[in-house]
Amino acid sequence: MRDRLVVVGAGAVGSAVAWAAAREGLAGEVVLVDPDPGSGASRVAGGMLAPISEAWPGERDVLELGAASLAAWPSFASAVASDAGRPVGLRREGTLQVAVDAADVADLDRVAAHLGDWGRPVERLTGREVRRLEPSLGPSVRAGLAVPDDLAVDNRVLLGALAAAGSAVGVVTSSARVVGVLDDGARVTGVSFASGETLEADRVVVAAGAWSAGLHPALEGRVRPVKGEILRVRARRSSLPPPSRTVRASVSGRPVYAVPRDEGGLVVGATQYEAGFDPDVRVGGVRDLVADVERVLPGIADYALEESAASFRPGTDDNLPLLGPVGPSGLLAATGHGRNGMLLVALTVDALAAVLRGDPFPDVARGAAADRSAAVRG
Amino acid sequence: MRDRLVVVGAGAVGSAVAWAAAREGLAGEVVLVDPDPGSGASRVAGGMLAPISEAWPGERDVLELGAASLAAWPSFASAVASDAGRPVGLRREGTLQVAVDAADVADLDRVAAHLGDWGRPVERLTGREVRRLEPSLGPSVRAGLAVPDDLAVDNRVLLGALAAAGSAVGVVTSSARVVGVLDDGARVTGVSFASGETLEADRVVVAAGAWSAGLHPALEGRVRPVKGEILRVRARRSSLPPPSRTVRASVSGRPVYAVPRDEGGLVVGATQYEAGFDPDVRVGGVRDLVADVERVLPGIADYALEESAASFRPGTDDNLPLLGPVGPSGLLAATGHGRNGMLLVALTVDALAAVLRGDPFPDVARGAAADRSAAVRG
Repeated sequence: MRDRLVVVGAGAVGSAVAWAAAREGLAGEVVLVDPDPGSGASRVAGGMLAPISEAWPGERDVLELGAASLAAWPSFASAVASDAGRPVGLRREGTLQVAVDAADVADLDRVAAHLGDWGRPVERLTGREVRRLEPSLGPSVRAGLAVPDDLAVDNRVLLGALAAAGSAVGVVTSSARVVGVLDDGARVTGVSFASGETLEADRVVVAAGAWSAGLHPALEGRVRPVKGEILRVRARRSSLPPPSRTVRASVSGRPVYAVPRDEGGLVVGATQYEAGFDPDVRVGGVRDLVADVERVLPGIADYALEESAASFRPGTDDNLPLLGPVGPSGLLAATGHGRNGMLLVALTVDALAAVLRGDPFPDVARGAAADRSAAVRG
Repeated sequence: MRDRLVVVGAGAVGSAVAWAAAREGLAGEVVLVDPDPGSGASRVAGGMLAPISEAWPGERDVLELGAASLAAWPSFASAVASDAGRPVGLRREGTLQVAVDAADVADLDRVAAHLGDWGRPVERLTGREVRRLEPSLGPSVRAGLAVPDDLAVDNRVLLGALAAAGSAVGVVTSSARVVGVLDDGARVTGVSFASGETLEADRVVVAAGAWSAGLHPALEGRVRPVKGEILRVRARRSSLPPPSRTVRASVSGRPVYAVPRDEGGLVVGATQYEAGFDPDVRVGGVRDLVADVERVLPGIADYALEESAASFRPGTDDNLPLLGPVGPSGLLAATGHGRNGMLLVALTVDALAAVLRGDPFPDVARGAAADRSAAVRG
């Protein structure tokens, strides 16, 4: 074995960490292990890179972490695109947060006030003003916030680009199923597969999303599945064109978003359930998503329904990810990203690369250090 | 060439006709041609064999034809199952037709009266009585008709059984795409393929559903696509079990049905659009299907949405199929079945077999004779 790094999980986070480690030569060999790469939460993501409009009152840490990652995204994207020889699907049209009923408008004002308090002012718009920006918004939209600096990424284009980039810099891939990380009490020694076989490793990054908790006792109970359902729809020739910006709304208190894709595509989310690993797309979930998005974008009734899908975001107790060393020496976490996995992948790569390089854990990511557990959970 | 019969289209109708012709030795060689067998309307069907509950006032011919085909179904099913060595997916639980609002109840009474006039009385039930039969029916169901003799078939199980049965009796299959039926002005001479190649044939059965009109001038304008959308859902462990009977309802004037499948499956239809060959499942169509079926079966909100699909029923001007000789000698139609393709397949097989055998066209199918065109369309 020549300084082998195993990354468990080929979603956006694991693929990006493996790519970064290989391109910087941070290990003698980088092995990315996943029985079905890109099949988890990364595949079902909306792809909003939206720390401002994602900010919920009381989650200032999440906002700051997200803002730092958003700042790191453009250079992350261009490095991946350069290695992959293809674009990563970044969109720079910004976000509109809109509100429908009086309570939603009050929420919007509360969010705007919080963001102002945190030094992140946004532009408050009337219903008429948001419709001028996005004519596909319906008459029931009463108010909005413009967040022009939020980005978005086509999650599936990104997954393809990360796979190509990893392959270009020498990441070795394996389709085995990892069932546990092995250690000798002090140091990581490798991973074990469902087949019963093992692979020796000096360091292991667990980037298995909602499934991470089962891979090592140090992660037990620290990540839980938070189910989300999305619809992928597409404007037809007869349809009103989709918005060019990401549209986020609160409809009777329920959040819904619509993130544009190329060629008239739109990803609509997000339901959120705490129901364990329940893989089904529920009829009632689809009904709610359609009802809510139609309130905001009425023309969507004529769109084609191309796909409905469910997956599991890796949730944590404090809504912050788990990054870096945890448990035995050589065990690194890159999980717990909750609803912000796509956004936080840029910051995650920087933090993990620093750790693998032997540099100090980046200050900006300190709140997400995986070894915060005792303090946070005690 | 040794008395070759070409059947164009491997949906339920074409597959069944080819099987019957081969098993009875009605041609020297039977070739069933389809680039994507079972991909059309047969794949998207609900599978109701329900002439009584499908009967609409004013469509007495459709009812009589359907009743004759229903009578032929059990022996058709057992012959296919026997040749296939597997079941065809027949269900004998019957149908409940239910109504939600006052106008729907009035419609139900009108249908019951018509059926009584036609000598096909059905049992009128109160809301409480239908819920006693099917506890999954919701409190908004106000009245019902019990139609115990209607059958149903799992369309995809049937398609699989027909393919196996055909293969067992020597049907030759081809995945070429037929673009036209050739004739010499008096007799059929063969079919032409998209590749430019041709295949000689003495007789050709056009069973290409909504696509039949384009295959020979004698069928031009006689079949049009009538789009339908369905949902395939499945009860989960946490869900109320599905009804055991087919449930048909009128909800605010819109028809909706739910046809049980094995293992908690349920096929929900039926939207109906006249919009040419528009292949998309529309968001608004799915929204309407879900809203309507939830009025009747509220527990469906917790079911898993497994699939949404659209296809094209072959519609005709008088809602009767086109069966038997049409145009040049040797050209036979087996298309135009509209929303009753699964039901009418048994009668269609009998009629086409009679023609291929040289017997007279069955009296019971006379109204569906393809050569009625002049009288009907003039």
